[in-house]
Amino acid sequence: MYHGGILSVDDEDKAVVLLSGGLDSTTVLALATREHAEVYALSFSYGQRHGVELEAARRIAKSYGVREHVVVEIDLRRFGGSALTDDIPVPKDRSNEESAASIPPTYVPARNTVFLSFGMAWAEVLGARSLYSGVNAVDYSGYPDCRPEFIAAFEVMANLATKAGVEGRRLALRAPLIEMQKSEIIKLGVELGVDYGATHSCYDPGEAGEACGRCDSCGLRRRGFEAAGLQDPRGA
Amino acid sequence: MYHGGILSVDDEDKAVVLLSGGLDSTTVLALATREHAEVYALSFSYGQRHGVELEAARRIAKSYGVREHVVVEIDLRRFGGSALTDDIPVPKDRSNEESAASIPPTYVPARNTVFLSFGMAWAEVLGARSLYSGVNAVDYSGYPDCRPEFIAAFEVMANLATKAGVEGRRLALRAPLIEMQKSEIIKLGVELGVDYGATHSCYDPGEAGEACGRCDSCGLRRRGFEAAGLQDPRGA
Repeated sequence: MYHGGILSVDDEDKAVVLLSGGLDSTTVLALATREHAEVYALSFSYGQRHGVELEAARRIAKSYGVREHVVVEIDLRRFGGSALTDDIPVPKDRSNEESAASIPPTYVPARNTVFLSFGMAWAEVLGARSLYSGVNAVDYSGYPDCRPEFIAAFEVMANLATKAGVEGRRLALRAPLIEMQKSEIIKLGVELGVDYGATHSCYDPGEAGEACGRCDSCGLRRRGFEAAGLQDPRGA
Repeated sequence: MYHGGILSVDDEDKAVVLLSGGLDSTTVLALATREHAEVYALSFSYGQRHGVELEAARRIAKSYGVREHVVVEIDLRRFGGSALTDDIPVPKDRSNEESAASIPPTYVPARNTVFLSFGMAWAEVLGARSLYSGVNAVDYSGYPDCRPEFIAAFEVMANLATKAGVEGRRLALRAPLIEMQKSEIIKLGVELGVDYGATHSCYDPGEAGEACGRCDSCGLRRRGFEAAGLQDPRGA
């Protein structure tokens, strides 16, 4: 329908996407931009060692023409407790099974809860009805806040917490990759035209932002491309 | 039992208290210090107009000898949407009924969710098993995230989100004031020896930090002291 040049976007057409700049969240952004007329990307600067991720997030948000990209600074280092923000060594050269077997030292306390809370706040202000996260229960089975039961409980809580939820304009928390293997995610992204060369995955990059190739995240990515039978545009 | 001079504090004896520096959270802090050997206070600098609250929180945390007081800076202004952080006028001269009848413009999107998420993160790092909040459903019936059903849903979510919850060391989210009238809270605090002269309640203080006397928060406080038959040490 022609609206006299003004495209009317209702709340159903607005979505907030949590974007780390990694492979998973970039795939989710690609999905969301297919589904929604207005997409808003939200990233966090939380004292992570791999700040190069944020540069990737900025470039990716721009390339997808998101309506707005907000980077919120939060200092989770105040509480300590993780290799991603502290000086605990990042584990290297572990198999998928080893990295999934236990809660890893790279676990950041309550990180997804904090991130989703901010996403929820922005969704409420925008009137957006969808909040997307790239959480994945397969690769990160050691992270409690990457499981479907956590996502479901967060959605229930979110709709009790907000004006919109109380007034019947429910927020849907969407985690489309949660049950997918890394190779399936990569195949989906390639279908959607994702440029994985722009994404960053390493927990422990070098000075110039280059991937270490040996941390859990690099390992998952390499084995994901191998299983998909595809070449990683960032190199092996 | 004598521990050779070292008092053993297990996780049950540690608590995190969300402390705004207002009347309710100060009463909760007084309660928590009776119940737990080690109390940690958590405050937020979130672009609120009433930054004088934080000064009150610092003095109160010190006077209760908390183990540590952390003030986390988070910028909820990035998302807009509230009179407490934006330039929307703070409503004045409303009755308790008027201020409770609808969601007020001073509502900050997802504020309690964000605050509790940080509290949960710190509790996990500390190994604390209790997280206290001064939320109140009576005075703030217009705020969705001050209701018992929200608190219950947050607790469920929190115990699915964290390593501690997954491993059976459940976090209890305690909101001891949630069903109390302001006058009951004040009477309880006076019994506990709370110095309400040190607390700050106003949404719209003057340059020197003095209460306006006319916002919803000042009105609730004044009528609470009146109903309790007590004198507010901060003056009428």
